[in-house]
This record gives sequence, structure tokens and C-alpha cells, in this order.
Amino acid sequence: MDTNKMLDEKLSRRGILKGAAGAAGIAALAMGGLGLFSNAEAKGGSTEKWPWPYEKLDPEKTAELAYNEWYRVFCGAAVISSVFTQLRDKIGEPYKSFPIDAYVFLEGGMVGWGTVCGSNAGANIVANCIIGPRIAGPECENGAAIGADILEWYSETKLPSFTPREPRIKTKIIQTTSNSPLCHVSVGKWMKESGYALNSPERRDRCARVTASVAYTLVKDLNAWKDGTYKQRSAWKPASNMGITAQQNCNECHGSNIPTPPMAKK
Amino acid sequence: MDTNKMLDEKLSRRGILKGAAGAAGIAALAMGGLGLFSNAEAKGGSTEKWPWPYEKLDPEKTAELAYNEWYRVFCGAAVISSVFTQLRDKIGEPYKSFPIDAYVFLEGGMVGWGTVCGSNAGANIVANCIIGPRIAGPECENGAAIGADILEWYSETKLPSFTPREPRIKTKIIQTTSNSPLCHVSVGKWMKESGYALNSPERRDRCARVTASVAYTLVKDLNAWKDGTYKQRSAWKPASNMGITAQQNCNECHGSNIPTPPMAKK
Repeated sequence: MDTNKMLDEKLSRRGILKGAAGAAGIAALAMGGLGLFSNAEAKGGSTEKWPWPYEKLDPEKTAELAYNEWYRVFCGAAVISSVFTQLRDKIGEPYKSFPIDAYVFLEGGMVGWGTVCGSNAGANIVANCIIGPRIAGPECENGAAIGADILEWYSETKLPSFTPREPRIKTKIIQTTSNSPLCHVSVGKWMKESGYALNSPERRDRCARVTASVAYTLVKDLNAWKDGTYKQRSAWKPASNMGITAQQNCNECHGSNIPTPPMAKK
Repeated sequence: MDTNKMLDEKLSRRGILKGAAGAAGIAALAMGGLGLFSNAEAKGGSTEKWPWPYEKLDPEKTAELAYNEWYRVFCGAAVISSVFTQLRDKIGEPYKSFPIDAYVFLEGGMVGWGTVCGSNAGANIVANCIIGPRIAGPECENGAAIGADILEWYSETKLPSFTPREPRIKTKIIQTTSNSPLCHVSVGKWMKESGYALNSPERRDRCARVTASVAYTLVKDLNAWKDGTYKQRSAWKPASNMGITAQQNCNECHGSNIPTPPMAKK
């Protein structure tokens, strides 16, 4: 995000919050002073100070953990678990207080609805919890950047890209490219090309390996961020470039008849 | 989920975890004994005990909070904040340790990619953190059930259904039905019918009101759950009925040419 937009949002946020204090009784405002204030300071969120302490993790080990955890908590929670359980051991809080298992519901693109693949959601949760949200300041913007990188990488990569050392399924698991971060599209294309059903052991192991692949890539990015060498790879800015929040595969749903969103007056 | 499937999954989970312990060094297993064990017991996740303490909240007040918080942290984090900040005040932990603001990234259907509407994701996070994940036992299944109800209600309802007492935008905000829990579809249909651009104040206020509408509905369900009167309304089971994770609006993307997923051998 460019600096002007950030500044605009910060200013508008302050203005708007003044209104909110009257309407909704948010007691926090008086503590905001003239500068930015964090929700942590205002409301006592003890884990809302960023970045969270982080130690570099082994991508391969993390991917193996994610693969195995898939069979316990499925895609989204498995990505979170693969990173946060290691950081619970290495660091402790705030990772011990994070309710990893609550995120089982990310399975099947959110309770089976086929929306965003849970491993993408889990990776975004991890990156944004560790590095922080963009509203917490420019130094926290890499959380959303790493999350966006994962969505783009997931969409463009032949997955699964990671093969566990001891796969539970010995059958060859083919790789497919989803062109989408959505569970329905990703799983559907793989099922179509492989011929395996949703409840087959092969499809399940495919998703466990996709989860591991995402965890591997996530930790590589987090390690680069820790080293100060991370640079955002993804450049997808649909809101400003397309006029609507969107993926990049317009034709898949719209065919050649892609609607033009109403645009703001210049 | 029926009892047999639950039982199967519990049994298979235990069996699989035995394998995982060797492969991935998960030290938890020895503590599992013969019964179910929670991740909290196994790995020290202090907030992984369910349900979390809950006191009934006022849906109207919660919706007003969500509406105003949208302008600070946007859809997903605003739903979480509207519920958890009240519970921080009424109860304290584990709500004080939950990193609400980290979820800003849910905006725009996850960093602008137009996947699941952040307010749906936020509502699922709240319900599953409070009530727990289905793997924690049958009494925790209402977390995913309330989350699924929200996805279905969101898809079928003319939104926004909630009007704040003091709207920031005085223009009439029309209601549209998305037939989808996705941001891109929900926002796109509203933009098409209203004629307002993505970065218009009207579209922004529409999304703030949708966020408030979701928070209102979520708290009604949580209150019913607390009273012991909650019953799942949604009956969408795509994995077992359709053979793939999916929404209900197949034709919108596939036209009349809806693919048949490969099905398991009988």
C-alpha cells in the first residue's frame, strides 16, 4: 500500500472513531491521544503487540508436521499447528494462548462450503498474527503481504509440491494447478484430473500434502522476513486495478462476458 | 454429523496419531490414553478448553459495535471485535489474549482476493473459539453448526438487514441477495444493482452494515446456544450429497454444464 493511502486511512480512522465513541460507547477513545493507538492499549488485548517473537523454523520439518496434523485437525488448523506448536516449544507465549484447534472449521473451504482453501486461510492467520495487521503500522504490512503471496503462489503452482518422507498413501499423487485459492476449484480440478473421489484416501492425502506445501512456503517467507530479506512477490491489486475484490481467473466463472464494475467518478 | 461418522473419525484420528507420533515426533500421544485428548492437554494450549465462558450479549448493541469497528478493522475483525471486546469486559480471559486486530487481513474476502466475506469468516472464528471444534467432542459441534448457519443465512438473506441508529451515510443503502458467501459475489451483485463503485462511501457503509447484520445474527445464535435452545437451521452437506465441497449456486459459475465429480466406488 502506498504511503498516502496509509496516511489517509489513519486520518480517516481517527475521525471516524470519534464518531464511533458517541454512537457505540467505545471507551477506548480517550486513550488514543493524538497518535495512533492500538487495540491492545485501548482494550487490554495482551497479544495485540506486534511483531510476536519469532525464531526461524525448518521448512521441511514444518511441512512434515503439517502433513501429519492434517489427519487430526485438517488443512487450516494443520498449517497453524505446524508453526505455532514449534513456537510454543521454542518461545512459549503468545503461542500457548492461541486456540489452534478451534480452526478445524476451516476444513473443506470453511465447514465444507468450498470457499478459500483452509491452508491459505491458516497461512494468512499465522503471518498476520506474527507480523501484525497493516493498521498497526507500516512495519506490520508484511503480514498481509506474505498472506497475499501465499494466495498467488497457491493459485499458480502445481500442487502438492511437497512430498512427505513417509507418505500414508503409496499411490502416485498427481499435481494440478488450481488458478484459484478456493477449495472447490483446487480440489475439483485435482479430482477431475486424477479421477479420485472426495472421500478417497488419495484425495485426503493430496490435501494433506497441499497443506504441507503451504506450510513449507509460509515458513520460508517468515524466515526471510526474520532475516530482513523478505520482499513481496505478488502484485495482484484487484480493488485499485479492477474495481472489485477478485481472483485472477475471471473467465472461469464469467466466460467471455466479464461484467464491468461501476467505477468511481474521476 | 451423524454419530457413526463422528465415531469413525475419532477412531481413525487415534489410529492415525499413533503413526504421526513416530513420523513427526508429536510428543502428545502418550498423554492421550485410551480416550479423546485435547490439544490443550497435549501441548499446553491454555485456551484450548471448550466451551469458553460466555455471557449473553445484546444483538443490537453488538451490531452497533460491529458497524463502527468496520471503519477501524474492516469486516472480519469487526465481527470478532464486536463480540470479544464485550466478553473481555464481562469475563476477561481467554478473550483478552485473543489477537482481534490480527484479522484485518480478512478484508475484501482475504487481502482483497474476494474469497469468503470476512464477516462470515469472523463469525465462524467467534463461534468455533467459544464453542470449540467438532473434534473436541459432540458438545462442541454447535460451533461449526452456527458457522454453517451464518454462511447459509448470509447467502439467502437480503443484506444489509441491520440499519445502525446513526448511519454515517444518509443515502439509501439498497439490499441485495448474494446467493453466495463470497465477498466478490456479494459485493459485485450489490455494486451492479446499486451502481456504486467499490471505493464509494456508500459501498463502504453497505459493507459495514453487512458486518453488523452478521454480528447481530451470530449473537442471537450464541445466546440461543447458551440457553440450550439452539438448533442448527442449515442442512447443506455438499461433501456427502454432492461429492465435492461447494456452495449452492452451481449454475452461476458452471452455467448448465455442471461437472459430475468422480464418486467413490460403492
